[in-house]
Amino acid sequence: MGQLQRLAIAPTQLHNEQILLANEQQHYLHRVLRLREGDHFIAMDGTGNSWLAVLSGNYAQILESIVVESELKVAVNLILALPKGNGFDEVVRCCTEIGVSCIMPVLSDRTLLQPSPQKLERWRRIAKEAAEQSERSLIPTILEPVPLHQALAAATSRQLYFCVARRNYPHLKTLLTATSTEITIAIGPEGGWTTPEIEGAIAAEFQLVSLGRRVLRAVTAPIVAMSLVSAAFDG
Amino acid sequence: MGQLQRLAIAPTQLHNEQILLANEQQHYLHRVLRLREGDHFIAMDGTGNSWLAVLSGNYAQILESIVVESELKVAVNLILALPKGNGFDEVVRCCTEIGVSCIMPVLSDRTLLQPSPQKLERWRRIAKEAAEQSERSLIPTILEPVPLHQALAAATSRQLYFCVARRNYPHLKTLLTATSTEITIAIGPEGGWTTPEIEGAIAAEFQLVSLGRRVLRAVTAPIVAMSLVSAAFDG
Repeated sequence: MGQLQRLAIAPTQLHNEQILLANEQQHYLHRVLRLREGDHFIAMDGTGNSWLAVLSGNYAQILESIVVESELKVAVNLILALPKGNGFDEVVRCCTEIGVSCIMPVLSDRTLLQPSPQKLERWRRIAKEAAEQSERSLIPTILEPVPLHQALAAATSRQLYFCVARRNYPHLKTLLTATSTEITIAIGPEGGWTTPEIEGAIAAEFQLVSLGRRVLRAVTAPIVAMSLVSAAFDG
Repeated sequence: MGQLQRLAIAPTQLHNEQILLANEQQHYLHRVLRLREGDHFIAMDGTGNSWLAVLSGNYAQILESIVVESELKVAVNLILALPKGNGFDEVVRCCTEIGVSCIMPVLSDRTLLQPSPQKLERWRRIAKEAAEQSERSLIPTILEPVPLHQALAAATSRQLYFCVARRNYPHLKTLLTATSTEITIAIGPEGGWTTPEIEGAIAAEFQLVSLGRRVLRAVTAPIVAMSLVSAAFDG
């Protein structure tokens, strides 16, 4: 099924084996993907269900349910300090491709700027597009930005990791065990976490970890962390 | 030493324990990094030598040679099909941070455009800056773009890997052995390698490998590959 085009749909679009297509979805299928009447594509509801469908005017007929085995065997939550500028677009896109489940953008001591609601909408659209393009069956959740301490308090995974640069903490790769079902990894801003933030993470029972000997930018570190997780948990 | 600023110098700038600073280096140290007379910084010649130096007008006095242990224990050559647009800037930056030794941009069947000499200069400058910022002691070499078959023929590592999407090849992570001293990894363009290119790689004794179950963009795949290598070979 690898070569078929993909379309994310809302579960509410599905009635009696038919998908009623919104205007922008019709445009996307016809104009962007250049599909024609009768062409097949894969519809995915973003929560793990996928179907082989055939395009027919303003709707698509479902032919069969299909199994897409592209998801990691672990749910990965990333707590990410928002970088300055537009770097977060690329982080959302790359981490979605590599398999993230949920991204929790956080405001940290060194990045206090609250992003506009338009930014959040934009990140969610990027996550949807990247999930389609990378042939995933899940669309990652992008949560509303909150202060770091709130995200730390809300983390419920049994494996909680807090990445810190330039110290001799254990490498994240040595701690990933294939029996985990959910992990949470926090990654800091340019300039790193402040000491109170690190103390807050320890208090919230996060384990301090390293991503290696080189100093990574805030944009690169989440991609490296996701790569390590995907290598540890891919089928 | 982690918090000191870094400056890449040419070996020819070094005479009698003094570094004669070029105009743009003086500007960078004084104006960009905001160092003052008498401030310390780390000078690196990009081939593995680093020194603690003190700023003094238009030169810097070397105080002592220092050991920077931030390099991977393996030399990693990346053969990368040039993506469309400006994506290669980010690939060079991220892969330098993660520890690449040499990048060989290649023209492939799906990316025929020969980049301008200005682009090559730009990628080399990005590699230098990223090596400084990530506190490496080596600056990666960026070679002139050549057709893929030339790069395949020139590869002399004993470990040669050719990444292919959507097929059941062994995962790169399972093949990285800590005893390697040099490896070469080839990664294709958007749309993937063509069948003749894959056949050419097999003929050149490259092993076909996978980077996981999800389909990665040409910009993301090299970063994922470098992350796996750095996790396998970091100290």
